[in-house]
Amino acid sequence: MFSAFDERMMLRAVELAALGRHTTQPNPCVGCIVTQGEQIVGEGWHRKWGEPHAEPLALQAAGAQTQGATVYVTLEPHSYQGRTPPCTDALIRAGVRRVVIGVLDANPKVSGDGVRQLEAAGVEVQVGLLAAACGELNLGFEKRMVTGRPRVIVKTAISLDGRIALANGQSKWITGAAAREDVQRLRSRMSAVMTGIDTVLADDPQLNVRDPSIDMLGRQPLRVVLDSKLRMPPSAAMLKLAGQTIVFTAAALNVPSNSLGVAGPTPAAAPGAPPSSQAISEVSAARSAGAAEGGPASAADQLRAVGAEVVVAAVDADGRIDLGFVMDELGRRMCNDVLVEAGPTLVGRIIELGLADEIIAYVAPVLLGPDARTMANLPALQALDQAQRYTMHAVDRIGDDVRLILRRRDAS
Amino acid sequence: MFSAFDERMMLRAVELAALGRHTTQPNPCVGCIVTQGEQIVGEGWHRKWGEPHAEPLALQAAGAQTQGATVYVTLEPHSYQGRTPPCTDALIRAGVRRVVIGVLDANPKVSGDGVRQLEAAGVEVQVGLLAAACGELNLGFEKRMVTGRPRVIVKTAISLDGRIALANGQSKWITGAAAREDVQRLRSRMSAVMTGIDTVLADDPQLNVRDPSIDMLGRQPLRVVLDSKLRMPPSAAMLKLAGQTIVFTAAALNVPSNSLGVAGPTPAAAPGAPPSSQAISEVSAARSAGAAEGGPASAADQLRAVGAEVVVAAVDADGRIDLGFVMDELGRRMCNDVLVEAGPTLVGRIIELGLADEIIAYVAPVLLGPDARTMANLPALQALDQAQRYTMHAVDRIGDDVRLILRRRDAS
Ligand SMILES: NC(=O)c1ccc[n+]([C@@H]2O[C@H](COP(=O)([O-])OP(=O)(O)OC[C@H]3O[C@@H](n4cnc5c(N)ncnc54)[C@H](OP(=O)(O)O)[C@@H]3O)[C@@H](O)[C@H]2O)c1
Ligand SMILES: NC(=O)c1ccc[n+]([C@@H]2O[C@H](COP(=O)([O-])OP(=O)(O)OC[C@H]3O[C@@H](n4cnc5c(N)ncnc54)[C@H](OP(=O)(O)O)[C@@H]3O)[C@@H](O)[C@H]2O)c1
Repeated sequence: MFSAFDERMMLRAVELAALGRHTTQPNPCVGCIVTQGEQIVGEGWHRKWGEPHAEPLALQAAGAQTQGATVYVTLEPHSYQGRTPPCTDALIRAGVRRVVIGVLDANPKVSGDGVRQLEAAGVEVQVGLLAAACGELNLGFEKRMVTGRPRVIVKTAISLDGRIALANGQSKWITGAAAREDVQRLRSRMSAVMTGIDTVLADDPQLNVRDPSIDMLGRQPLRVVLDSKLRMPPSAAMLKLAGQTIVFTAAALNVPSNSLGVAGPTPAAAPGAPPSSQAISEVSAARSAGAAEGGPASAADQLRAVGAEVVVAAVDADGRIDLGFVMDELGRRMCNDVLVEAGPTLVGRIIELGLADEIIAYVAPVLLGPDARTMANLPALQALDQAQRYTMHAVDRIGDDVRLILRRRDAS
Repeated sequence: MFSAFDERMMLRAVELAALGRHTTQPNPCVGCIVTQGEQIVGEGWHRKWGEPHAEPLALQAAGAQTQGATVYVTLEPHSYQGRTPPCTDALIRAGVRRVVIGVLDANPKVSGDGVRQLEAAGVEVQVGLLAAACGELNLGFEKRMVTGRPRVIVKTAISLDGRIALANGQSKWITGAAAREDVQRLRSRMSAVMTGIDTVLADDPQLNVRDPSIDMLGRQPLRVVLDSKLRMPPSAAMLKLAGQTIVFTAAALNVPSNSLGVAGPTPAAAPGAPPSSQAISEVSAARSAGAAEGGPASAADQLRAVGAEVVVAAVDADGRIDLGFVMDELGRRMCNDVLVEAGPTLVGRIIELGLADEIIAYVAPVLLGPDARTMANLPALQALDQAQRYTMHAVDRIGDDVRLILRRRDAS
């Protein structure tokens, strides 16, 4: 059904689509090629939300040569009036003869509509050329279209014996420089990067893309911190950077400051981690300050004052921020892919709840021993078949480390 | 200095040498090719200790065509009278013109002698063609020649978070069938397979090569159990198999039975692990029986009665069987490569003491959590740079698992 030329063209369309992987969000990456005979007469790829789609760009590049052309497009052309006019109309108006599509639109409400519109106008349509490669471009977009939630990718940097830090917290550096550079590329494709408050307090991470060789067109992944008790210091490094930070907090604490009693400071023995590092002391200071001004809600005000968004989350049966709520909220904000870069507590919880679609582990050729901190706190198992199984999706050497990509068995 | 033809010939010699990898021990694997012009006229490889070396076999195959020939041999031909006459003499007598050698003899006492003898007889000699590949064939042999000790390879089958078994001991199966088949191939190249007594008591492993597709010519790797208190049950599965088992025990217990008092049984609260499994109960029974007959030395007698060799080892400063002693003893017994397939106690000790030349980890795409048992008990570290660093030598997918081969930084 497809010729070797067809395959070469779609492969090229996939390459074009991938040029947009840092910048199209929340839109999908799409690449398009217009051919006459065995000649490419136009190419296009979607670059940025609000800018033209791949198909009109490719048709435009083809100029007068669209009549009777064959068009290769990685994703089904959309057939409805959105922010941009329907791409199916543009294709039909341009008089193309045949459209070869990688994968259908993931949105169940419109999936197949583009094909039907083209066919109704007499255009020959073929679907499924290099479907796996075309699908890989937009796994997160597809998941959000189908479930309303982003795809969740857990990133971890570990020793061979699965440790992320020494007992004393030291974790710089288990893996090498090449792995850290790879994390920059990984982040650049993400809608959001999520961590737990204890990683913020321990490491004060930036969670941004700062590799100058990656052109983000000004975008930064949304930073997300899970912090029930608002221990986040307004002095946190990430709050000084370009881009947005959302702090999810637990409902009970989010009483507006003016509805709180004006009583004394929160008890020092609040249910936070015991102070043990300079970073934590700073936070305690910040909290006390907040408390003196009227309790935890002031902490929210302080964070808002330095530009953070504070969002009240539902709490789950175990009293923790409800991760389903968080994922729904990120889906609502049109996040396709969320990278979790956290410690064993949050990573463990995400894996335990079956929320991890993918685990990307950078494994270093070193052993740290049982006193060092493990990558994921999980409940004890009674039998091996209770463990969640993943598939070993990809294995690559990254510098002197290896990167293992595990995918959920049932996930695409 | 070397032509593409030279390289092709040496590559072929390496392939031939590798045919002997299951069976030449304690001898090295060697492959040899005799050429006239660009024509192969004879091939040979060493198959088994006591059988002819690769060079005379290749010369014999070349028959009348050795005069003026070029010979490719992976390892320097030996120049002294051993169990077989010097290969240098055979080459000189055959009238060959040129000998290309992969690597020199590893034995520092004779290294280079073969080259000198050939050159003294007017043969042109070149050394170092595909030296890395030729060296890889005999890393264990080389180490033993240089240090008197075998090369130590630690094998482990782990989850992504570095666990070898659940808290309840369940460990069948973390990795898949393909990884287990690979372990058979790995074992087949080993002189010995070593484990700790607690793995014997937990799993009653066979430690043998039983893949019918591997022709061992009747050989089995020597089985080695470290067992200070002689808790090894005479009923252990490995003692019923073809091949030899050595049990290393601690000196204090190795009093000959007739020199022991005829007093009552050893106290039940001997410093063994508390009985907690059926396997352990069996052993306790065996020990009590032995004890009733005259104390721990009887346990040695019982093991000897079922064909095991019981060897008294020195004890290290921590009161454990001295691993240096064990390695010296295995070197003395001409073991080139020892595979350690043990639990976290023995594996940890071997890594801690810097004895592991290589770690082969089969990593499964599953997480077992912090309650599960870790791969290696190691002392706590204060700083990351105290950890022993390895290099990531090789990364390969084996079924749905990945096999990581780590090598000591300073090791070849
Ligand atoms: N090697 C690596 O790849 C890597 C990456 C990141 C971090 N780390 C290391 O990890 C360590 C920190 O790990 P950690 O486990 O202590 O902290 P963490 O996982 O980063 O943060 C956990 C905290 O997040 C908050 N949280 C809110 N909702 C949650 C929910 N639903 N589930 C779980 N947590 C929730 C909780 O604090 P509240 O109850 O106060 O909200 C919880 O204590 C540091 O040593 C850091 O260096 C290593
Ligand atoms: N997944 C895998 O790859 C794998 C492989 C093997 C085992 N396992 C699992 O590992 C578990 C057993 O592990 P384990 O750590 O308890 O036992 P182990 O390491 O197999 O054996 C340790 C015992 O060996 C003896 N030993 C003698 N000299 C020693 C020395 N110098 N250093 C260390 N040990 C010495 C000690 O007993 P004495 O003091 O009595 O001599 C010690 O308790 C089992 O659950 C088994 O299923 C998993």
